[in-house]
Amino acid sequence: MTLTPEQTAEIATARAQTHSTLRPTVPALEELLFTAFPVLDHGFIRVVDYMGDDSAVVQAARVSYGRGTRKALEDAGLIRYLMRHYHSTPFEMCEIKFHVKLPIFVARQWIRHRTANVNEYSARYSILDKDFYLPAQEKLAKQSTDNRQGRGEVLAPATAERVLNLLREDAEATYGHYEEMLGDDVGLARELARMNLTLNTYTQWYWKTDLHNLFHFLRLRADSHAQYEIRVYAEEMLKIVEAWVPLSFAAFRDYRLGAVTFSAKMLELVKRMLTGEAVTQEASGLSKREWTEFMSSLGRE
Amino acid sequence: MTLTPEQTAEIATARAQTHSTLRPTVPALEELLFTAFPVLDHGFIRVVDYMGDDSAVVQAARVSYGRGTRKALEDAGLIRYLMRHYHSTPFEMCEIKFHVKLPIFVARQWIRHRTANVNEYSARYSILDKDFYLPAQEKLAKQSTDNRQGRGEVLAPATAERVLNLLREDAEATYGHYEEMLGDDVGLARELARMNLTLNTYTQWYWKTDLHNLFHFLRLRADSHAQYEIRVYAEEMLKIVEAWVPLSFAAFRDYRLGAVTFSAKMLELVKRMLTGEAVTQEASGLSKREWTEFMSSLGRE
Amino acid sequence: MTLTPEQTAEIATARAQTHSTLRPTVPALEELLFTAFPVLDHGFIRVVDYMGDDSAVVQAARVSYGRGTRKALEDAGLIRYLMRHYHSTPFEMCEIKFHVKLPIFVARQWIRHRTANVNEYSARYSILDKDFYLPAQEKLAKQSTDNRQGRGEVLAPATAERVLNLLREDAEATYGHYEEMLGDDVGLARELARMNLTLNTYTQWYWKTDLHNLFHFLRLRADSHAQYEIRVYAEEMLKIVEAWVPLSFAAFRDYRLGAVTFSAKMLELVKRMLTGEAVTQEASGLSKREWTEFMSSLGRE
Amino acid sequence: MTLTPEQTAEIATARAQTHSTLRPTVPALEELLFTAFPVLDHGFIRVVDYMGDDSAVVQAARVSYGRGTRKALEDAGLIRYLMRHYHSTPFEMCEIKFHVKLPIFVARQWIRHRTANVNEYSARYSILDKDFYLPAQEKLAKQSTDNRQGRGEVLAPATAERVLNLLREDAEATYGHYEEMLGDDVGLARELARMNLTLNTYTQWYWKTDLHNLFHFLRLRADSHAQYEIRVYAEEMLKIVEAWVPLSFAAFRDYRLGAVTFSAKMLELVKRMLTGEAVTQEASGLSKREWTEFMSSLGRE
Repeated sequence: MTLTPEQTAEIATARAQTHSTLRPTVPALEELLFTAFPVLDHGFIRVVDYMGDDSAVVQAARVSYGRGTRKALEDAGLIRYLMRHYHSTPFEMCEIKFHVKLPIFVARQWIRHRTANVNEYSARYSILDKDFYLPAQEKLAKQSTDNRQGRGEVLAPATAERVLNLLREDAEATYGHYEEMLGDDVGLARELARMNLTLNTYTQWYWKTDLHNLFHFLRLRADSHAQYEIRVYAEEMLKIVEAWVPLSFAAFRDYRLGAVTFSAKMLELVKRMLTGEAVTQEASGLSKREWTEFMSSLGRE
Repeated sequence: MTLTPEQTAEIATARAQTHSTLRPTVPALEELLFTAFPVLDHGFIRVVDYMGDDSAVVQAARVSYGRGTRKALEDAGLIRYLMRHYHSTPFEMCEIKFHVKLPIFVARQWIRHRTANVNEYSARYSILDKDFYLPAQEKLAKQSTDNRQGRGEVLAPATAERVLNLLREDAEATYGHYEEMLGDDVGLARELARMNLTLNTYTQWYWKTDLHNLFHFLRLRADSHAQYEIRVYAEEMLKIVEAWVPLSFAAFRDYRLGAVTFSAKMLELVKRMLTGEAVTQEASGLSKREWTEFMSSLGRE
Repeated sequence: MTLTPEQTAEIATARAQTHSTLRPTVPALEELLFTAFPVLDHGFIRVVDYMGDDSAVVQAARVSYGRGTRKALEDAGLIRYLMRHYHSTPFEMCEIKFHVKLPIFVARQWIRHRTANVNEYSARYSILDKDFYLPAQEKLAKQSTDNRQGRGEVLAPATAERVLNLLREDAEATYGHYEEMLGDDVGLARELARMNLTLNTYTQWYWKTDLHNLFHFLRLRADSHAQYEIRVYAEEMLKIVEAWVPLSFAAFRDYRLGAVTFSAKMLELVKRMLTGEAVTQEASGLSKREWTEFMSSLGRE
Repeated sequence: MTLTPEQTAEIATARAQTHSTLRPTVPALEELLFTAFPVLDHGFIRVVDYMGDDSAVVQAARVSYGRGTRKALEDAGLIRYLMRHYHSTPFEMCEIKFHVKLPIFVARQWIRHRTANVNEYSARYSILDKDFYLPAQEKLAKQSTDNRQGRGEVLAPATAERVLNLLREDAEATYGHYEEMLGDDVGLARELARMNLTLNTYTQWYWKTDLHNLFHFLRLRADSHAQYEIRVYAEEMLKIVEAWVPLSFAAFRDYRLGAVTFSAKMLELVKRMLTGEAVTQEASGLSKREWTEFMSSLGRE
């Protein structure tokens, strides 16, 4: 992680200033506030502001479902009920703002989540730092043979070395020329010079979203099918969310992260299997691919 | 305003609990937090949470525009620049949550602003209170003759009296029947009984939005063309926003609330008028309606 | 259903005009275009425009997943894959626009789906017709005793009669006074007079959304837990969508409408049951309510 | 522009197939449908589907404003009224879908417009073509000295030559290594290899939005302050929109593209100037920068 001395000083200053507020406050999240958690070789993620807590979810649910719910369900049970039945609006009452440093190719995946607010470092206005992502050697893997978008076996050490050299040298060279084009001799406009940078160059942004949309992001990006380089950010966020809204997080883990959805056909098969019937792929009505996914869900691969 | 004793107690409790936080905090808004400000005869609006302040706008702008901007522009000037040039994303970094009690016909206008989070009291789950809006006598006006959606002259006192009697008696009668249908003798499902209520019945909701979208709401709803019954809510919100983000609010007032947009044609006319040319509607290329609006903008109606 | 003679004539005219286009066109949906399908006692729904078809979903998926997918998967298989893995963006490439006449209390539920475009008949500008919803007698049911938002047993005929009389008389009376207030004697502004109408008054709107968001709407509103009065609109839309995008619809039916999601805990129980273990609620770790839902999913209530 | 032979054949096929439809159809846009218009050195933009026309805007406005508007205003006048008063929802009833080939650094600006549907070519699934953007020599300009995000004077020919060589050689080299990493010898996963590409590499996507949001995009991106490389796409879209919805486009041109917004302070100055008063920056209350913008708006720079 490369925090500038300026950023380190800002964090220290921010963490030293305590304010008094009437707002709901989460001590466990205050502990983490502003601190930059390292991700990948030069990236980080840190919480810079938040609003609401588990009780904001409960409060919103209770205005919707009225006074009667007060006695019927304890907070944890109510939150589980909301999660289970896809009553998503109460989770929108919590908001969190992150400061993230991340490679541009990761930023391009991330930005596809549209229901969020973003302010990114602009290479039209400013010069990007010389920071680029080089994967750890054990993360350099072959194209998967059975999955068009995944990784397969790890590269042999010599091959990995060769790849890292290519990545490093190209990033160095293109950044060097970026600087040359920006230099006094040429003075090219920044909005043009930036096009010479490679996609592993780091950028940074403020990214703010509500808890419902954050859960949606995490369900997709903390998933084992997500690309490793975005998943590691999602995994840091899981820890942060657990500190922030422990009841909502527990419900999310049970009903989303660890959950499985069976199609109508699959559900029918489960029912038949529960009666003791032996079911085969051929007789199942599922495609081979679906059958594999189905068996895998049931721990029978 | 009809706060339930329960709500009054909740407000007192909430205002008595001070927390310690590292988050940006706005003392002037803390002063107003949780307090219910009366609107119309039984409505209210109150802030129940917020996130960010003017410096969050500046911080977001500076990550976009880079270090160089630090010296170039003071905070107020930067915020004015952002507002003037429609750089709206930095304003999205601030978030505010209101609790509002409002007539259903007002809620139906309000909800058209889609970029917000809402949890409304549900008449499927709970029984609505016997609260309905009756306009003050001086607000009862005739249909405007020159504006298809506005109000014209105030009704004569006797006519106003007659209208108020109709509104009161119908609201009383329909609410009475609502109660009768919900009572033990009938026991009709709440989701059905509610259809008998009139549109001036009060509902309530939590409504959360970011500062950019709030400004958009306020520009339309604090405008003189907005219906009086929603405008009074917007006007309370203006005061709250001024306490919360004074620099952003000042820029909003100058560049949006008090601003005027001239079409290409109108701008051409202004330029000609500035050379001393006398311009008439006939020669202007504007329709009569546009001409009237144009003259009015220039204070020449 | 009450179509005005004007509307009936418009539909006939529209259906008589054939145009030539290069756009993807769906003959089965063209058959239904403009025709108003009756819903409830005076409501209707009709398709007034659309864009895209199943092949637009496939085309969008193939630009994302590249040329290689061309041979790997047939269209139906690709669409099923997208639906199963929540790759929702290709479904956003199809768009449909409805014209709907519906009671105001239904419109208030419907509008909560924010990712849609809406233009509603405005009672500020125009006078609402005298059309209000009265449930069929067999739809008048008691409040459910085990579900805070549902209906239970049907009312006895005499009680139902009494309820219908109350609803009819109140709607008649309040509409009569609405007319009186709008009449020449009083001339009250329309934006004020409307507040006297009851929530079962019909309104109408154009409502336009993309296929992904429409599926989300249908999953929630065609569900057995949705209120009957909105579910009947959703059910008409299911038929329309089936005619429009048969492959996408089949995938939706299998993976969403008929699907079931098991939480991590529930999935663990299924696995144990498949080994022949007898599982009880007490030992399951599920609450009573969850257990009931779980058993019901497995057809064992 | 580099269309693959496959794409050229697809366009010819699509343009040869005429369908019969009851939907509103715009002959002038049908003329342009599917055809790829070249932008920059290898990019293009083409319309691949659309829904609605000027009459859809009118139809939506008339359901909102009711029957009475039918006679009051002709279509063009109604559309101008809607645009002038920011009644944006009727414009949302039209939808258009583009297929665009564009450099990645342009795509990164474009995607910030969130209210749109996008499917982009995925370099996780497929291999990107060897296409990268090299500016025309006369577009290579120095960093602006008075505008932190703009371009100033054009580079001297020899300097421009040097810049183009750097851009070309780096793009060639990094693409070559991309191919090497993907080749049989190494077989690196595509999702990793792509990080070595430079930001001027071309990507492509389907991009679909409604007319209101398209106007918003065009107001910002067809503006003289927008970066040249995105502005040229916006300019092609202006022509397409004019063919599609000529009345809406004319209103947009007058009330948005050619319009100017004066702040409350500026408006006050205009009024004083119209009385013949000479106003100076010092006495104006405007900052130097605002004064310059103000004078420029009035054609007095």
